[in-house]
Amino acid sequence: MASNSFGDILRITTFGESHGPGLGVVIDGCPAGVPLQEADFLPELARRRPGQSQVTTQRQEADQPELLSGVFEGKTLGTPIAILVRNTDARSGDYSPAPEADRPGHADQAWREKFGHRDHRGGGRSSGRETVARVLGGVVARKLLPGDCLVRGHTLAVGPIRAKRFLPETIEANPMRCADPEAALAMQAYVLDLKAAGDSSGALLEIRVTGVPAGLGDPVFHKLKADLAHAILSIGAVTGCSYGAGFDTATMRGSEYLADPAHFGGMLGGISNGEELRLLVSIKPTTSIGDVAKLGRHDPCIAPRVVPVVEAMVALVLANAMLRQRLAR
Amino acid sequence: MASNSFGDILRITTFGESHGPGLGVVIDGCPAGVPLQEADFLPELARRRPGQSQVTTQRQEADQPELLSGVFEGKTLGTPIAILVRNTDARSGDYSPAPEADRPGHADQAWREKFGHRDHRGGGRSSGRETVARVLGGVVARKLLPGDCLVRGHTLAVGPIRAKRFLPETIEANPMRCADPEAALAMQAYVLDLKAAGDSSGALLEIRVTGVPAGLGDPVFHKLKADLAHAILSIGAVTGCSYGAGFDTATMRGSEYLADPAHFGGMLGGISNGEELRLLVSIKPTTSIGDVAKLGRHDPCIAPRVVPVVEAMVALVLANAMLRQRLAR
Amino acid sequence: MASNSFGDILRITTFGESHGPGLGVVIDGCPAGVPLQEADFLPELARRRPGQSQVTTQRQEADQPELLSGVFEGKTLGTPIAILVRNTDARSGDYSPAPEADRPGHADQAWREKFGHRDHRGGGRSSGRETVARVLGGVVARKLLPGDCLVRGHTLAVGPIRAKRFLPETIEANPMRCADPEAALAMQAYVLDLKAAGDSSGALLEIRVTGVPAGLGDPVFHKLKADLAHAILSIGAVTGCSYGAGFDTATMRGSEYLADPAHFGGMLGGISNGEELRLLVSIKPTTSIGDVAKLGRHDPCIAPRVVPVVEAMVALVLANAMLRQRLAR
Amino acid sequence: MASNSFGDILRITTFGESHGPGLGVVIDGCPAGVPLQEADFLPELARRRPGQSQVTTQRQEADQPELLSGVFEGKTLGTPIAILVRNTDARSGDYSPAPEADRPGHADQAWREKFGHRDHRGGGRSSGRETVARVLGGVVARKLLPGDCLVRGHTLAVGPIRAKRFLPETIEANPMRCADPEAALAMQAYVLDLKAAGDSSGALLEIRVTGVPAGLGDPVFHKLKADLAHAILSIGAVTGCSYGAGFDTATMRGSEYLADPAHFGGMLGGISNGEELRLLVSIKPTTSIGDVAKLGRHDPCIAPRVVPVVEAMVALVLANAMLRQRLAR
Repeated sequence: MASNSFGDILRITTFGESHGPGLGVVIDGCPAGVPLQEADFLPELARRRPGQSQVTTQRQEADQPELLSGVFEGKTLGTPIAILVRNTDARSGDYSPAPEADRPGHADQAWREKFGHRDHRGGGRSSGRETVARVLGGVVARKLLPGDCLVRGHTLAVGPIRAKRFLPETIEANPMRCADPEAALAMQAYVLDLKAAGDSSGALLEIRVTGVPAGLGDPVFHKLKADLAHAILSIGAVTGCSYGAGFDTATMRGSEYLADPAHFGGMLGGISNGEELRLLVSIKPTTSIGDVAKLGRHDPCIAPRVVPVVEAMVALVLANAMLRQRLAR
Repeated sequence: MASNSFGDILRITTFGESHGPGLGVVIDGCPAGVPLQEADFLPELARRRPGQSQVTTQRQEADQPELLSGVFEGKTLGTPIAILVRNTDARSGDYSPAPEADRPGHADQAWREKFGHRDHRGGGRSSGRETVARVLGGVVARKLLPGDCLVRGHTLAVGPIRAKRFLPETIEANPMRCADPEAALAMQAYVLDLKAAGDSSGALLEIRVTGVPAGLGDPVFHKLKADLAHAILSIGAVTGCSYGAGFDTATMRGSEYLADPAHFGGMLGGISNGEELRLLVSIKPTTSIGDVAKLGRHDPCIAPRVVPVVEAMVALVLANAMLRQRLAR
Repeated sequence: MASNSFGDILRITTFGESHGPGLGVVIDGCPAGVPLQEADFLPELARRRPGQSQVTTQRQEADQPELLSGVFEGKTLGTPIAILVRNTDARSGDYSPAPEADRPGHADQAWREKFGHRDHRGGGRSSGRETVARVLGGVVARKLLPGDCLVRGHTLAVGPIRAKRFLPETIEANPMRCADPEAALAMQAYVLDLKAAGDSSGALLEIRVTGVPAGLGDPVFHKLKADLAHAILSIGAVTGCSYGAGFDTATMRGSEYLADPAHFGGMLGGISNGEELRLLVSIKPTTSIGDVAKLGRHDPCIAPRVVPVVEAMVALVLANAMLRQRLAR
Repeated sequence: MASNSFGDILRITTFGESHGPGLGVVIDGCPAGVPLQEADFLPELARRRPGQSQVTTQRQEADQPELLSGVFEGKTLGTPIAILVRNTDARSGDYSPAPEADRPGHADQAWREKFGHRDHRGGGRSSGRETVARVLGGVVARKLLPGDCLVRGHTLAVGPIRAKRFLPETIEANPMRCADPEAALAMQAYVLDLKAAGDSSGALLEIRVTGVPAGLGDPVFHKLKADLAHAILSIGAVTGCSYGAGFDTATMRGSEYLADPAHFGGMLGGISNGEELRLLVSIKPTTSIGDVAKLGRHDPCIAPRVVPVVEAMVALVLANAMLRQRLAR
């Protein structure tokens, strides 16, 4: 069953295996006249790619996007925007002719139950490399958001360490993508220790979106919170998602909940209320541990690289909801 | 934009305002030959309805389902199954000719931002009464699951009180739908105290599903966990959702995570692995507090009534995934 | 597989068997603020109903629509509009306890191949009565079209008789829905002769739509002509559909084709060009012939009753395309 | 609005402009385990390409498909199959820096009404070159049909000349794709005369499908005939479509219609009945006439090149319906 598309008005369809010729996305439903060029995709691909620092995998992948359609003279045509990122030779060199054994905590066996076989080359389509296509889609989605709408994720906690401050301008200045520089240093030390021990760490992300117009989201099955949860839980590493006061609401009284509008997380009845959107996202530790982890071929803490992927999915949901909103009255 | 449908192969489309003539659902995509009759809907409607106990609202609603189509001689025809539940006169009597003021923490204003007006009769379609239609859909969905597949929700925590045991046969025996009878008593006392004070409480639900076949869910955007999160967060009262070790994964090391397969929550790579599915769902406290709460016209703790709604949405996702699985190879 | 919905932005979902409790439609995606009331549905239901004249079936059905949701204080809410039309007792009385034999030229056997059984009460969902729901949807769709956009069908030919004039104001004044009063008389005589002989006749309809804005339709798979053909061929009695010069283009030279813009039928590249839309639709003769036909229980010429159904489907496509157009730039 | 996908279970999403880097398709929903390789696409691309003979355009395009994903070790993975066909340098050389004027009978102006601009390089996405992607999709679709299911189109008539015999083995042996060798010669002479005069001709195609299982198609909006009409009318050159006795039914009596089961065209109630499917498709004459036509840069009769495109769309509908049928009971 066709299942590699996300969104209805602005819809991305993604394809590609980690060790095949390449990965890509078709972005359908972008209105005509939006300025877009190949170079626009580079910064977000760079934020997602491996090899950025010691706390993520050391593998190097030069992701070069090729814009195949949908743009003419620097503007979108209203036709599908297709972008291809080829896998490099280095990746093909990784390819082991003998099938790898199923790895604990991986999708290998579930995949085989489903399809009767699996692509044993480095995960195939269940590889994290699939998120390249999401990041590409997110770049286009952001262009459809209002100029003052800022989708911003950061690493709020790693293991026992939790950020105490929110200094957004520091997020990209440390390899943890943490908004608290001191906490970032502690997180980094924690993760490198785990890496040396062949282990890995989970993390907690926070997503904040400012400048969201009121009225986004639909009343019942496409509440904004529902579409956001769908989008975010579709990312492999994510184990949970909440908005506003989130799981803390379980122990709150109504009077407490109402006392602080921040508890609403920017949505009421599933529809944006014009305040800042706030989401919490839990990330599981990478399950590729032991010797492979020591060699740096896997991420001791994937969180910093998940940040741009979550942002991309959030941007896609918001852009879709913005377009939907043209149809409400 | 059409947004009142959920599911693709098995799809429910719901309609109805809380104070209009009635609510209903069209269930499209149910295969032919499934035994079904009107009486099948009664038990789940009873579990959802108000007026069950002191811990929920005292309003009485006799929800009588009328099966309008899709069944002949006790079996589904393969055609759409439409079910109507009329709103009772009592509800119409509630109708205040003067528009109510916007209520804090409610969707009233967001709704107006969206549509340029709102149905001021008791919430209209943003009312919790909308969930009647979901429960009806869930009854059909459950019939498509394997005989040993059991979707079971319970109240795990309310305020400071947390269940310590899981005795599933006790869930329906107490008004909290708690699987620990002692904790249930404590929860009940806690909620009644809040009610007397005109306040309300949030809660934490757990959903467990046994007998789930391996292989359900699709690799990328329709991972089972993503469709479940979408379904569950589309319920008004829900503020967060996680699976397996959930938000605890944020502080886990990879070695810890792998040490207990229960941490996977029954899914790997977003595809069911044949083990028990486990989800946590946070419920916010009802925001209708103060004098109306004391009068029992609102739920001091909505959690017990959300349980059958979450179960229904989970059953719909699983039934849809079961049908999708016929298409995998 | 869910398949009883049509449209994506403005989407109708229909339900109901001919001899069950009733038929209905959920219209999802209608913007908020559109004036609508129950009485609006009566004229189109009257145009579709049996028993209008000697040239159609003599069965009497009083179709009374009940507006169940989506409208408040005379305006649409932006929520789903559900409408129910109950089948009358008379229809239930028709119900033969012994299954009817498969009828030649009917869907009976195909249906059984598909679902493993069939509703033997008068056709079930493959009955022409299903079109009640389409007509209801069309009423809402027309309200979304520009004020000067007029969707108008008429009977162009029946058997050997073809209209020679187009006097639109005469269409509703004769039972054939023919725009040429003289031809209408001849058609009527022809059909009554066939009826007396227990036979029936096919027909050719023309649909003209004035006031269609330029730019409707999408470039590739949702060309306006493609969505129209889908909509129209989904009606049971229809055997073919063309636009503009239609099948005559097969014998035309390019220079001839270009010589008269009417040959384009109001669409270029599948997108409306602001000129009058013109479609031809062929209708097969009713296959219920012989004694039942003489008794007037079936339509000797269904065409006049198909006219409002085709118009409804065309209006649904156009309204959907109008809403889509809000998303093009 | 996303509109470049076709199908729901087996879904193609196409992209690409005629003078951009290339065209392609993502085929989502193909079950796992189907044998597939790059070479499989070559024969159908060759049937569609320009430059096959004097009766079609003389432009040469070497369409080389690159299989980017979805296949491993010669079998489909159950993941999206992406295929890219690059536009050749020759096409880029065609590119006129000065915008071409709107061409009569083309989509140019309608396109500009819609999107506020257009790709003036040879038609952009409204170019017939878009059909490359459909043909690629059709190759995969055919692999999902039963071994004895044969989708076969042929040119039945061109201008005044109509085939009198049906010798399917001769279709590919003449440039007209006509199943009657004598008629083929006459058609060819007719078309070459028109070409010399800078003119073009329309045509009539017939599609026959043998080996279609009974039970395909869904009762109401996805009747097989409706999905086929949608698919076929989405092709630029097509002006009409009918099945079975088609437009002849308009003048038939019921007794005549029932007398020959071939009149049903292989469908009853919109559901396949196991007999041969038969469709008629009218093709308009190419509107690029005059001097450009004489130079052979356009098709004096596009029909032979439309045949594989129509076949591809029919195969996609049938494969989708076959997969849907797994869900009926």
